[in-house]
Amino acid sequence: MQAYHALERRFARLSRLDGALGILGWDKEAIMPLGAATERGEQIATLSVIRHELLTDSETDELLDRAERDDAGALDTWQAANLREMRRQHAHAVAVPGDLVEAASRAATTCEVAWRQARAENDFAGLLPLLTEVLETQREVGRAKGAALGLSPYDALLDQYDPGTTQAFIDPIFARLQEGLPALLAEVLEHQARLPPPLPLPGPFPVALQRELAGQLMRAAGFDESRGRLDTSTHPFCGGATDDVRITTRYDESDFSGALMGVLHETGHALYEQGRPREWLSQPVGQARGMTLHESQSLLIEMQACRGDAFLSYLAPLLRQTFGDNAAWSPENLGRHYRRVRPGLIRVDADEVTYPAHVLLRYQLEKSLIAGDLALADLPAAFNDGLRALIGIDVPDDRRGCLQDIHWPGGAWGYFPTYTLGAMTAAQLFAAATRSEPRLDPRLATGDFSVLLEWLRLNVHRKASVSTTARIVSEATGRELDAAIYQAYLRDRYLER
Amino acid sequence: MQAYHALERRFARLSRLDGALGILGWDKEAIMPLGAATERGEQIATLSVIRHELLTDSETDELLDRAERDDAGALDTWQAANLREMRRQHAHAVAVPGDLVEAASRAATTCEVAWRQARAENDFAGLLPLLTEVLETQREVGRAKGAALGLSPYDALLDQYDPGTTQAFIDPIFARLQEGLPALLAEVLEHQARLPPPLPLPGPFPVALQRELAGQLMRAAGFDESRGRLDTSTHPFCGGATDDVRITTRYDESDFSGALMGVLHETGHALYEQGRPREWLSQPVGQARGMTLHESQSLLIEMQACRGDAFLSYLAPLLRQTFGDNAAWSPENLGRHYRRVRPGLIRVDADEVTYPAHVLLRYQLEKSLIAGDLALADLPAAFNDGLRALIGIDVPDDRRGCLQDIHWPGGAWGYFPTYTLGAMTAAQLFAAATRSEPRLDPRLATGDFSVLLEWLRLNVHRKASVSTTARIVSEATGRELDAAIYQAYLRDRYLER
Repeated sequence: MQAYHALERRFARLSRLDGALGILGWDKEAIMPLGAATERGEQIATLSVIRHELLTDSETDELLDRAERDDAGALDTWQAANLREMRRQHAHAVAVPGDLVEAASRAATTCEVAWRQARAENDFAGLLPLLTEVLETQREVGRAKGAALGLSPYDALLDQYDPGTTQAFIDPIFARLQEGLPALLAEVLEHQARLPPPLPLPGPFPVALQRELAGQLMRAAGFDESRGRLDTSTHPFCGGATDDVRITTRYDESDFSGALMGVLHETGHALYEQGRPREWLSQPVGQARGMTLHESQSLLIEMQACRGDAFLSYLAPLLRQTFGDNAAWSPENLGRHYRRVRPGLIRVDADEVTYPAHVLLRYQLEKSLIAGDLALADLPAAFNDGLRALIGIDVPDDRRGCLQDIHWPGGAWGYFPTYTLGAMTAAQLFAAATRSEPRLDPRLATGDFSVLLEWLRLNVHRKASVSTTARIVSEATGRELDAAIYQAYLRDRYLER
Repeated sequence: MQAYHALERRFARLSRLDGALGILGWDKEAIMPLGAATERGEQIATLSVIRHELLTDSETDELLDRAERDDAGALDTWQAANLREMRRQHAHAVAVPGDLVEAASRAATTCEVAWRQARAENDFAGLLPLLTEVLETQREVGRAKGAALGLSPYDALLDQYDPGTTQAFIDPIFARLQEGLPALLAEVLEHQARLPPPLPLPGPFPVALQRELAGQLMRAAGFDESRGRLDTSTHPFCGGATDDVRITTRYDESDFSGALMGVLHETGHALYEQGRPREWLSQPVGQARGMTLHESQSLLIEMQACRGDAFLSYLAPLLRQTFGDNAAWSPENLGRHYRRVRPGLIRVDADEVTYPAHVLLRYQLEKSLIAGDLALADLPAAFNDGLRALIGIDVPDDRRGCLQDIHWPGGAWGYFPTYTLGAMTAAQLFAAATRSEPRLDPRLATGDFSVLLEWLRLNVHRKASVSTTARIVSEATGRELDAAIYQAYLRDRYLER
């Protein structure tokens, strides 16, 4: 067990570097002064290189070999899974030479900063050289990892975010989803047109009140504030470190709903992070399984729990109390707001029915870009054509088109599909939880998330990376991930009322 | 030049680790949730060990040898100074064996935690074993570094905070200062007793207004907000990274003056950091010279510039405008507040006339403790006798006596003298600046710091570590550091009005 224990110490050190990187990354998005961008990029690159060197040095490899040869028989289930995850992380890391790691990291950091301005100025052409640098380094990373792991370049990129998920797994599920979408969308829009339009919600909504309410609901959902923070950033996210989970949101005085649902969404991510098994926090097996399950946790809280009738009946009087008495604060009217379907340009503003279309488009485009079947210069046209075909609207400018997301400039290629895989997983998990815990829904109607949280702790959070995403889903729900369940959920929520 | 350039790359990497540590340290003090304390400690320890390993590994030593042998003739002034500073940092780091580094760090961390309670409970005897551990490890560090650098143990400790400063340099200056102090203090107190007491300043002072005013003055003084931030913490400090200088303060609604002068003090530190030469920012020669010059910059802004008549005539109407009309907001009344002399027990609350006494005492005591001429068990009595002799007041308990400061339990031995060396340097620099720039004072009366800042940039900030503290002071002021100049300044400010 000597080799295995030496590996545990080594990976604990890596975990501390990850934590440091998490805090530096949070700081960059939330509060860093603009003039520090270059230096911060270098700090992050330096720590990433040191992390890479530690993970890939020959001693790690020797220890892994020795542990697999000498210790395997003596390991318990979690230790064995931990050793497997160590090997997986090591395999990903050694596949990419150090200078490519550094080049990819620097390209992404530089491009991400430039993207903020390029988006504001609608300047795709201006960003193109830096974005090309990002794409080229990502393709190289995909090729290098693919060669080592026996995967295609795009599958290798996917595997970074969602271990075990491949194009072969996604394609039929997404095809089935896409097939049903246009008809469902038309049906929902027609159904909606027959309903009375929602009463306008009476703003403005002072930021201080929004912040207080968001904090209150975040705590109600189970967020542990002694091990995390809520702050503000342009692009909301959940980051930070193991015992210091940081979620961010952005406030708009004319609309309380974005920030509130944003916080609840990020709270779902945070609950997963905070619910991982304490004794494995600093080890690979203790990490969240992947981005599909991560997104399933955020969407489960935001979409399944908090936009459902039970929770809205709890939320309505709270909103009335916070923002002043008005007939618009009825659960029914809130429901009509929160379930308003309106095909639009912006992915992050999209409703549940059209959101998959935004993801399907990006998934197709990034697959083609990585494969070399699409040139980056042709991205705007392909993006605009794709959106028109999927949900029938025209993109007026790149700012609201292919420049809208941080993922590509920031180097997160292979990430987009996990949003919709996560949405499907959320619906499937919530349906299973509600079936097995009849008290769940009545409790949500009183603002009590404890039954739901306990079920999630047991069936998802505490499993961390001890098994695969597919197995966690099928053990928790009794079925493999199934597009039909998601479609049934959409029909139920958007048609049956 | 190959070896030299390799060293530049290596030290740039160290600088990025320092920057990361600076941001993590700031975050810990300013905003970290309490539950993250253990994990953050581990992150910081991990980065510190990685930094130490990189600085002390055999390759650094070989590169230094090769650069000194092969490249020295080809280096320009700044490069040569950079190589000298690299060698200095390396010599400090390798002088101490790893187990002593760890023992000293552990003793200080443990003692610092225990000290918070011991101070609250006035329990010197209880702290004595842990404090002995700190003193013993610091003496060993001093002996080890002294042997490597050809210095006495105490000089070696001093050299960590203020390179080049020695006991032989300090002793005559402090002796001269001490000689004049009791008479000056008596004279000032007598003079002050003849003046009308200051009118009370009309509070409360809402935090939001204090923060706005502090920010405004910080910017007026020249703080570049695109490369830094102002935030809140229990213990105000200036930290962060090269292009991201972070200062903190604490607000008290019943007293605006602490936060305001605190921000201006930290702004002085920040201006030094932000004014270092850009092309050398990531190199040892581009670092601030030492704690004497650093403290001189904070005190120059706070004490010399902002408590002077010119600036107070600008500040008075601003305060009236911010906090409401009142006769107390006259420049004369503010002057009487800011120049109130009142011998007291607590160093950090002391006025400019009595502050040196607190430092002289601590300097004598820590020299004797390191030399072994004073036993730690006899410290309380020696402290109390010393304070009585210097400013004539009795210490009622150790809590307000030798237990008041974090420095000794925290392992910062050899740091105290830089406070008073800094105060003297500030007065000498400001006098020289005012002589050479007649516009300086009239400009301060309009809230315009640009003439002062330009002079400081040229004479202090841009010199970074290219020469010694002594030489920077004598080149800027035409004289070596001279206690008479400081005494003349104190007489002028505290007697001549």
